[in-house]
Amino acid sequence: MSRPLRIAAAQIGAIDPTTPRPAVISRLLALLDSAASQSIRLVIFPEIALTTFFPRYLLSPAELDAYFETSDPLISPNTAPIFRSAHEKGIDIVLGYAERDDQGRGWNTCVYYSASQDKVLSKYRKVHLPGTVEPFADPDAINQLEKRYFTPGDLGFRAFRAPGLVEGAVKKGDLQKALVEGRELQTEGKGDAILGMLICNDRRWPEAWRVLTLQGAELIVFGYNTGANMGHLWGSKPMPKEEAEREALFHSRLVQQANSYQNACWSVSAARCGMDDGKYELIAGSAIVSPEGHVVAEAKTKGDELVVAEIDLADCRQGKEKTFDYKRHRRIEHYGLIASQTGVVEPELL
Amino acid sequence: MSRPLRIAAAQIGAIDPTTPRPAVISRLLALLDSAASQSIRLVIFPEIALTTFFPRYLLSPAELDAYFETSDPLISPNTAPIFRSAHEKGIDIVLGYAERDDQGRGWNTCVYYSASQDKVLSKYRKVHLPGTVEPFADPDAINQLEKRYFTPGDLGFRAFRAPGLVEGAVKKGDLQKALVEGRELQTEGKGDAILGMLICNDRRWPEAWRVLTLQGAELIVFGYNTGANMGHLWGSKPMPKEEAEREALFHSRLVQQANSYQNACWSVSAARCGMDDGKYELIAGSAIVSPEGHVVAEAKTKGDELVVAEIDLADCRQGKEKTFDYKRHRRIEHYGLIASQTGVVEPELL
Repeated sequence: MSRPLRIAAAQIGAIDPTTPRPAVISRLLALLDSAASQSIRLVIFPEIALTTFFPRYLLSPAELDAYFETSDPLISPNTAPIFRSAHEKGIDIVLGYAERDDQGRGWNTCVYYSASQDKVLSKYRKVHLPGTVEPFADPDAINQLEKRYFTPGDLGFRAFRAPGLVEGAVKKGDLQKALVEGRELQTEGKGDAILGMLICNDRRWPEAWRVLTLQGAELIVFGYNTGANMGHLWGSKPMPKEEAEREALFHSRLVQQANSYQNACWSVSAARCGMDDGKYELIAGSAIVSPEGHVVAEAKTKGDELVVAEIDLADCRQGKEKTFDYKRHRRIEHYGLIASQTGVVEPELL
Repeated sequence: MSRPLRIAAAQIGAIDPTTPRPAVISRLLALLDSAASQSIRLVIFPEIALTTFFPRYLLSPAELDAYFETSDPLISPNTAPIFRSAHEKGIDIVLGYAERDDQGRGWNTCVYYSASQDKVLSKYRKVHLPGTVEPFADPDAINQLEKRYFTPGDLGFRAFRAPGLVEGAVKKGDLQKALVEGRELQTEGKGDAILGMLICNDRRWPEAWRVLTLQGAELIVFGYNTGANMGHLWGSKPMPKEEAEREALFHSRLVQQANSYQNACWSVSAARCGMDDGKYELIAGSAIVSPEGHVVAEAKTKGDELVVAEIDLADCRQGKEKTFDYKRHRRIEHYGLIASQTGVVEPELL
């Protein structure tokens, strides 16, 4: 049974610290207009899609506040227009933003908004925060202060169903009817689409993908802000700029392809990219990847761009039922360390 | 501190069911000779390196026995010559073979033999057995009866140190001396090389790599027998032969590169390849991959071939200390499902 779905990554180009929020919002709205004209059902916006990637700056609490959303995104003056537009157009969206909760904690957050339900179906807070709490001593190094500004996500990796995204999905009512009639109903992979959300650095951690696909995720989506000069960013071996950008793109694509394949799921990545603030370059490379690990659509620019594909969620079944049939092949008796030991414990010296 | 090591994957071409064991052994010995002439310190032989890949055949117990080793490999007439040669040459080896234990159980096994210690330092039994217990109904399908002939490995994923492989390794004695003298000694990544072994299909399971690198593995090695016609093999969508071979190679390389990167470790893969029995083609593609996920050496043929590289184990440090510093970045409170739930549990239907 085919389960087709038209989706898009909404890549967003350069945003400077001085760019007014309404100017960014209008760019997101323009991409939504374009999505509507192409009959897209689901649009993925990047991580921290509304402002420049501020964790590269050491900011005072007052300066920092300007980058955070503090209220329900559906009613906030900053974000409400995006959800209203999505609702009118019947397009589900994933939107990433910096969240400040009522206890004052910062989170690197994204939400899944269902147009048909007119509500947020799921919220995710980034678990794998990269970078450091303190800025680098080297004044030329590019900081990555996510560990300073955000709390590690407390919501875990929760897969969820998105009603209405695919036609003809099996419903709970069908199941009850079949039970009453004494019929067996094979529902796996035939209900409403099962999705999972990650954010940026999470994509490099196979644990995140696995927890989502252990809940049946068929489509994993994530936005990212990834430096095109990671070497310098991390205080690592210096590298010529072109090589550093190629390397950052290579790693980003490699983990998206391999984790899609190893988890037999579709994936969509959406980049915040381009040259911010006249000197901080972020990689582009937004992509839609199949459960066999193939890139089926990718960004052609380093700016605002809709990356579109018609995918078939049924394509997950081959992997989920054969090579990666977890029930037949996984051996959890040997996986204990993964969930019980955080850091490395080396064998004793000889 | 540089920690150089000259290693090789010993790729082995076609072996027919009728090929006598001594003919295979002499090919392994020829590759060891070649390794010695190139000052190689460690050679990785493939999975089930001594016979044809027999799980493709439905065999009687008597037929099956001919493919298994039943005694200590160091003294078995089939395998002893390989270990004697490795000892003489001062080359450590990893050798894969089908093992029958004294309770009659079959295992898909490999051992790590240390030339300087003249003993087996570690044994691994394949955990992720692919295929089926029963043969396919379709007489044209290629069977994969590993689940019939082997028991899932009972030894887990155990990283281990290989003494003498790298020069100038920090020893337990150094540590004790430093303690007495009240000095701190930073040993992580400076002792004897830490290795881990996998076999074939294990490479597609990120859990296996992670458990090994949670124990500090710097080099993960594996052999494989992988059909060039996986589509047909698994009873999946039929595919033209060339496309199926390309796809099998693509997946094999993809997971080796991504898992090396995500685990900040070197990896070596050694293929049993070529056309067995006049009609069963196995992919080649043996490769040595860096902790940044780059292929530094790869097979150029589909036959017997030594794939050589001089690697530096110190290259793991950047990944292990920055992007993939487990202690700072892993969040085990969200990984519980990985080690507690084998199969998929989907969210309820709506």
